[in-house]
Amino acid sequence: MEIRKLEGLIAAPFTPMKQYGSINPGIIPAYANKLKTDNVKGTFVCGTTGEGTLMTNEERKAVAEKWIGEQTDDFKVIVHVGTTSAKQSKELAEHAQKSGAYATGTMGPVFLRPSGIEELIGFCSEVASGAPDLPFYYYHIPSVSGIDLSMYEFLQKAPSQIPNLAGIKFTHNNFMEMQQCLQLEDGKWDILHGYDEMLLAGLSFGAKGAVGSTYNFMAPIYREIITDFENGDIEAARKKQSKTVKIIEILLKYNGALVAGKAVMNLVGIDCGTCRNPLRNLTDSETSNLTNELVAMGFKM
Amino acid sequence: MEIRKLEGLIAAPFTPMKQYGSINPGIIPAYANKLKTDNVKGTFVCGTTGEGTLMTNEERKAVAEKWIGEQTDDFKVIVHVGTTSAKQSKELAEHAQKSGAYATGTMGPVFLRPSGIEELIGFCSEVASGAPDLPFYYYHIPSVSGIDLSMYEFLQKAPSQIPNLAGIKFTHNNFMEMQQCLQLEDGKWDILHGYDEMLLAGLSFGAKGAVGSTYNFMAPIYREIITDFENGDIEAARKKQSKTVKIIEILLKYNGALVAGKAVMNLVGIDCGTCRNPLRNLTDSETSNLTNELVAMGFKM
Amino acid sequence: MEIRKLEGLIAAPFTPMKQYGSINPGIIPAYANKLKTDNVKGTFVCGTTGEGTLMTNEERKAVAEKWIGEQTDDFKVIVHVGTTSAKQSKELAEHAQKSGAYATGTMGPVFLRPSGIEELIGFCSEVASGAPDLPFYYYHIPSVSGIDLSMYEFLQKAPSQIPNLAGIKFTHNNFMEMQQCLQLEDGKWDILHGYDEMLLAGLSFGAKGAVGSTYNFMAPIYREIITDFENGDIEAARKKQSKTVKIIEILLKYNGALVAGKAVMNLVGIDCGTCRNPLRNLTDSETSNLTNELVAMGFKM
Amino acid sequence: MEIRKLEGLIAAPFTPMKQYGSINPGIIPAYANKLKTDNVKGTFVCGTTGEGTLMTNEERKAVAEKWIGEQTDDFKVIVHVGTTSAKQSKELAEHAQKSGAYATGTMGPVFLRPSGIEELIGFCSEVASGAPDLPFYYYHIPSVSGIDLSMYEFLQKAPSQIPNLAGIKFTHNNFMEMQQCLQLEDGKWDILHGYDEMLLAGLSFGAKGAVGSTYNFMAPIYREIITDFENGDIEAARKKQSKTVKIIEILLKYNGALVAGKAVMNLVGIDCGTCRNPLRNLTDSETSNLTNELVAMGFKM
Repeated sequence: MEIRKLEGLIAAPFTPMKQYGSINPGIIPAYANKLKTDNVKGTFVCGTTGEGTLMTNEERKAVAEKWIGEQTDDFKVIVHVGTTSAKQSKELAEHAQKSGAYATGTMGPVFLRPSGIEELIGFCSEVASGAPDLPFYYYHIPSVSGIDLSMYEFLQKAPSQIPNLAGIKFTHNNFMEMQQCLQLEDGKWDILHGYDEMLLAGLSFGAKGAVGSTYNFMAPIYREIITDFENGDIEAARKKQSKTVKIIEILLKYNGALVAGKAVMNLVGIDCGTCRNPLRNLTDSETSNLTNELVAMGFKM
Repeated sequence: MEIRKLEGLIAAPFTPMKQYGSINPGIIPAYANKLKTDNVKGTFVCGTTGEGTLMTNEERKAVAEKWIGEQTDDFKVIVHVGTTSAKQSKELAEHAQKSGAYATGTMGPVFLRPSGIEELIGFCSEVASGAPDLPFYYYHIPSVSGIDLSMYEFLQKAPSQIPNLAGIKFTHNNFMEMQQCLQLEDGKWDILHGYDEMLLAGLSFGAKGAVGSTYNFMAPIYREIITDFENGDIEAARKKQSKTVKIIEILLKYNGALVAGKAVMNLVGIDCGTCRNPLRNLTDSETSNLTNELVAMGFKM
Repeated sequence: MEIRKLEGLIAAPFTPMKQYGSINPGIIPAYANKLKTDNVKGTFVCGTTGEGTLMTNEERKAVAEKWIGEQTDDFKVIVHVGTTSAKQSKELAEHAQKSGAYATGTMGPVFLRPSGIEELIGFCSEVASGAPDLPFYYYHIPSVSGIDLSMYEFLQKAPSQIPNLAGIKFTHNNFMEMQQCLQLEDGKWDILHGYDEMLLAGLSFGAKGAVGSTYNFMAPIYREIITDFENGDIEAARKKQSKTVKIIEILLKYNGALVAGKAVMNLVGIDCGTCRNPLRNLTDSETSNLTNELVAMGFKM
Repeated sequence: MEIRKLEGLIAAPFTPMKQYGSINPGIIPAYANKLKTDNVKGTFVCGTTGEGTLMTNEERKAVAEKWIGEQTDDFKVIVHVGTTSAKQSKELAEHAQKSGAYATGTMGPVFLRPSGIEELIGFCSEVASGAPDLPFYYYHIPSVSGIDLSMYEFLQKAPSQIPNLAGIKFTHNNFMEMQQCLQLEDGKWDILHGYDEMLLAGLSFGAKGAVGSTYNFMAPIYREIITDFENGDIEAARKKQSKTVKIIEILLKYNGALVAGKAVMNLVGIDCGTCRNPLRNLTDSETSNLTNELVAMGFKM
């Protein structure tokens, strides 16, 4: 399978839910429109930000289908199918392919973790075989998954067992490893940058695409960072990156980027509701403080 | 709900599978007979050893049903329903109750882990509410789940939100915390010892029941340890515990207690097949070496 | 060197200091008398509890000498000489031997940690060679040192390079490994139990000696635990161990066993002063609350 | 104290030693000349690369003095005085000031680690007070020290207790935190980049100075990276950074940058000898393989 590369910003969307209740996929078309208006190039759905692993399989399928319904040439949908079970993930991958997704991806298995790279590849191979006609991305996020195997080694050993491997969603601040992955085989692989607050580092090392949760509600400033960077104006890019750091600093104070981020979506007019157990939602007064801090920092709602 | 305590050995059974394929629940009746013959008092099914999180929900239900079919007053079935999703786990708990299980249990959510004890209780509360008429056990296994919140605090705060809380499957070598749990409220809670190779420590601190994977194939020696201990013959108990340590040492050399343990089941006549991804099964030659080492250590097959 | 085993309680003494200032070795004779009165069999000086690594080498030597001055056949002094530098530790070991210590010990090097067991043995070998006529103990305390290499492997490989190796101060709750060490070569090695709050587990597995910080101020109850255990009255031993757990629970609330423990020493009449940077001493009001909680728990001062 | 910023490359020098023996400070003048020739702007001596914590205090003083003897306006000497003991480190700081060093620095205490930022500041404050007339740098290296407290918080709280605080040697790949530190108070603090293989990221975020071990033997390529970056030619900088990654990849295969790096120094004509316990030196055949791999990668000796 020829490897095509994703460029620009890919949102890791929140999954709209009703107040502590069922999923609310009816919101997704409006959500997708907002992202398209912001020139976001696609979505990586049902991942960490999307509370993928907090949903049932049926819910994940329903959410994925709805996003795929909004897919265009300029707005691609990658379905994260990661679970603790290769068999279950493979079923989700089959569904994604049948539903017309652009690509699939999975994190490694977080309970009974792989003891080595071969075991990780074995797991991914089974999952990726569920959507053999679609590009497959491994989702590398050691801080949450607890799986920190070498992606450089992965890219060298996996292709024989994962013919549809396209690359890695690289959510890690080990930029030595990221460089190794980006440089391997003359830059063959699609390495998607993962930490929004360090986008400029990824760009410096040659990343072209980036997946993140704050692209949901502040994509424009990140697009400017990319433009400044491409124009060689690093200082301008750095100042804008610094602004995003200040916003993220605030989100982290309010239960982290997932819980606070979902609250921000509600503030910007996309009703995403609340998060599921074991996440703790903000109280009304916390939401109000969050809003005030964001406004004081110049965040526009 | 009045708390009844489990006493004696509870096996954490392997899930019989066909060679790298589908589950094989037809083996379960014979498996249960072996355990009953060995005076094992029950099973904690679909847990770590049972590859619970590597199965689909449908498979877990099928396996649980089959075990429940073997349940007697002297052989209780506790169904582990842990997944990363409270909603999904709740559904499994509902199924367990409907199917007639003795109790349910869950580990904490291993992706998007709880940030504090309240979040863990919130998760468990949702899961336990799926089987409100059954005792509920929290499955504490920090070395694998990565969740190491204080169980002492859990037992003090959880009851108001989990009315059917019975206790903890305590798979951790923090014996200070275990003592705190065992002593709390005059020993009200059912704290099940978890590490087979340290059973004598659990007994010393007052544990009465124990859940483990090696009780599947060497329950008799552990029963003798309990008997020696109850008779005040610690030295005899210690010598036997030391023998189990030597066996477990061998298992750990051969890909760990799960992979090697499943191989041992096949050797003792219960066809459990192989393990799923991302576990790596033994080669024939490794199995042969494992067998030889066990025999040399006096293990009877 | 023939291995003699230590039996009974060994205190890990606090180092008396003046208020935020210089060491105060003049207190040591009275301190030693208290320990002897409590039937404590020796001291492991300048270790974790003794703030060994927070002192200068000159201070460590002065403190060690003063303790050695109190040494008798029934009250042995083991000098902890651990630093990050094998060369520096070797010098401290030379001093300990010259000064007449019973034995020396060292933890592994905590900055530039050993990458494997051979490297750890290399380090210990250099240190132990400074006191070749004295028994040498390796101080295993992974929770603080961050070095968690297999002690079972250590005992098998180290003797050829450390002829004076006597055993291990085993401060870890991995009781499988502790059993392996205790059973090796028919119980040849001296494995000293390390966690006071789990003493009963160590006794169950066969430990005869124990080193700890709370033996400084509540040795009598631990001696009773040992006596009960030897008399086969596990239940009585368990109840007493449970009382110690409750005391330690209180200490942990007040900045941990070292800071709170030093405060307790002052309460029981041995003026140990305060702790050094980076430890945070208790305020007067915290000390007062600590005292009240201890008294409420039945602690006698 | 007004904060002056260091710019350009600062070497973290190896400490020359004789074969498994004593230090060899006689080599230092030639070593300093090489660095000056390579336009290196200073040295951070007796740190991780310098095996500072593996030396005795006397050795550290001797090594520091020799480096200070080579100091010029264009070649500044920062003395790392970190030990586990604030008191001992303070003495080393006093010596550094008396000897004429440009600045001092310390890592946090690695045994009995600080439980919070106040404790870390308390430690640093005591150390920095030993050289009150010199700028003081905190050495942040969580991967080795195990101390990962927020440097952003440190910079906000420390100045009142450390009047001579100049900044941080930031050896961590948390580039969000690095940005926070660089941006704080309009860029007041001197934040020195720490990971050679990610220099381009540090430059992108605004770092002007960098401390590293590979600047000892391949400073020229890093100077070109800086020049390319300043000229806006990121792609050229990236290609050169990628070359350094390939070299470092090789070093890591041969026992890591410290052991292999010292071997490389010998290859480029500065006799640095071998490393101390617990580091494992290369065998002759390993050194030969290392040499071949480096040459194949285009490394010039």
